[in-house]
Amino acid sequence: MILQCIMSQTTPERILSNPWYGKGFFEPNQYKVAIERCKNGSDSCGLFTKCIQQRVNIERDYIGALKKWSLTWQKEIQRCQEYGSNKATWFASVIAGEQHSHTHSEIADKLENVIEKISQYQKDNYSKSYIHTRKVKEFEKDFEQAQKGWLKLIRKLEDAKKLSDEAKEKLTKSEPANRAIQSDSGVSDEQKRKVKETVETLKKESAAQESKFNQLNEDMNNARPEYEKNMTTVLNRTHEFEKNRLEFFKQMFQDYHDSLFRIKPENLEKASTDFKKALESHNSTKDIAWWNSTYGTGSSAGPKFEGTINT
Amino acid sequence: MILQCIMSQTTPERILSNPWYGKGFFEPNQYKVAIERCKNGSDSCGLFTKCIQQRVNIERDYIGALKKWSLTWQKEIQRCQEYGSNKATWFASVIAGEQHSHTHSEIADKLENVIEKISQYQKDNYSKSYIHTRKVKEFEKDFEQAQKGWLKLIRKLEDAKKLSDEAKEKLTKSEPANRAIQSDSGVSDEQKRKVKETVETLKKESAAQESKFNQLNEDMNNARPEYEKNMTTVLNRTHEFEKNRLEFFKQMFQDYHDSLFRIKPENLEKASTDFKKALESHNSTKDIAWWNSTYGTGSSAGPKFEGTINT
Repeated sequence: MILQCIMSQTTPERILSNPWYGKGFFEPNQYKVAIERCKNGSDSCGLFTKCIQQRVNIERDYIGALKKWSLTWQKEIQRCQEYGSNKATWFASVIAGEQHSHTHSEIADKLENVIEKISQYQKDNYSKSYIHTRKVKEFEKDFEQAQKGWLKLIRKLEDAKKLSDEAKEKLTKSEPANRAIQSDSGVSDEQKRKVKETVETLKKESAAQESKFNQLNEDMNNARPEYEKNMTTVLNRTHEFEKNRLEFFKQMFQDYHDSLFRIKPENLEKASTDFKKALESHNSTKDIAWWNSTYGTGSSAGPKFEGTINT
Repeated sequence: MILQCIMSQTTPERILSNPWYGKGFFEPNQYKVAIERCKNGSDSCGLFTKCIQQRVNIERDYIGALKKWSLTWQKEIQRCQEYGSNKATWFASVIAGEQHSHTHSEIADKLENVIEKISQYQKDNYSKSYIHTRKVKEFEKDFEQAQKGWLKLIRKLEDAKKLSDEAKEKLTKSEPANRAIQSDSGVSDEQKRKVKETVETLKKESAAQESKFNQLNEDMNNARPEYEKNMTTVLNRTHEFEKNRLEFFKQMFQDYHDSLFRIKPENLEKASTDFKKALESHNSTKDIAWWNSTYGTGSSAGPKFEGTINT
């Protein structure tokens, strides 16, 4: 249920405005979506450590509170009016009540170990270093390189299209004027011939521009497979880089799972056993007997007369 | 070790100043130590609930922190740039990280149940009610009653002792004077006879007072078994009352133990299983394929010329 709900939420591009969505990857600069994915991978490492760190803080707060509670009550019980095995058991109960801190220390320590691994991964894969350029910079450079020639072709094609369109427009505009002049009896034959020649020239020019454009278009169609291959090669390297991160995250989720759920039961078992021992020593008969011998009928042989009246 | 250490600390009366220590129980008003023990029993109930309540508060704080953490990160992950099964697994990890709250809710609920039992015990045994007098008031009244006659005897004996001492002192002082007068040739026989008579009277009086005192002392010795029996009867009732409390505390320590250490493992097991399922669904190949079809080479059939240059 939850998973399904989340899976359906993993396509915010269908709802939110997303500058990358609905465009073809081979369009100019669209490769930047792959660069952004690399950067997001680094951000995710940061978020992941922050998320786990906050979870660790909760454990540490809990542990601190348990220890403070235990110390406070050890003192309180020591100075209270209890006595004998009942007091000892109470004291042991406070010691036992603190022992969950061991389990939670184990959780916190293990989670911190996960944080360390993620930080190291982030450092290794996303940070600058003297030896390596940042991976993301490298990808960016390679995409730019692979798209450079293609962008030139696009610009040339755009220019040719513009010239072809302009020639076509001029021709289109000249044709009705030509037809009107040719059927006009008030225009001299010489003038009619000149206008016709101009139209012919425009026709030739338009055809030439169109042919130039068509040639460039064909050139592009021929260049496309190589261009797309080169872009795909870089893209596949970013896929590999990202897949590596996803697999690493999977491993970290596994480690996180074990940090939370594969906790040694020995600590709590020992705490339970220790406290049970104290409970077994609890002996109200003995406690009452001690009290009676200290304050009760056993505390003296009873009032001696001299003792009594001389006080 | 701990137990031994505490057991040795259960006799503060040997170190601290303690108004009750070192006196015989049957001495006047010494029974008040038993009354104080009753009151201490009530104080201990109060301390015990306070101690556990603070332990519960730690659990509640922990649970609250887990839930807040989980909500914060559910939102954070939903709006982050992750996608696919990796995002879903991350989301599931936050859900899993909150599940310890169930275990700790169980601990808190069980501990609150212990608090309720102790409060009820305190109410039943130490509070005033319309029907019953407070147990401690009843004991106090009964001790007073059992000691009343004995205190009267003590006062009488003290008075007799005083009179006897005074008579003895007068006699003792008169004797050297008598001896001096009897051997004085300047004193008449009549005077000597009078002084001698006075000394005889003092002797008789002293003997009478001493006899009266001895009689009272004997009366007390005769009355002592009955007095001590009556006092012991009331004391035994306070012992019973206290033993009842100690046994109740033992039961509460047991309940407290079970609250902390007999926690159903099902909740955490289920959390672990649920999260493992999410982990099994983690599929980096699928995620990369989804991304590629949305933003990569699968995102369109490649740039169509018209599409490109008209934008």
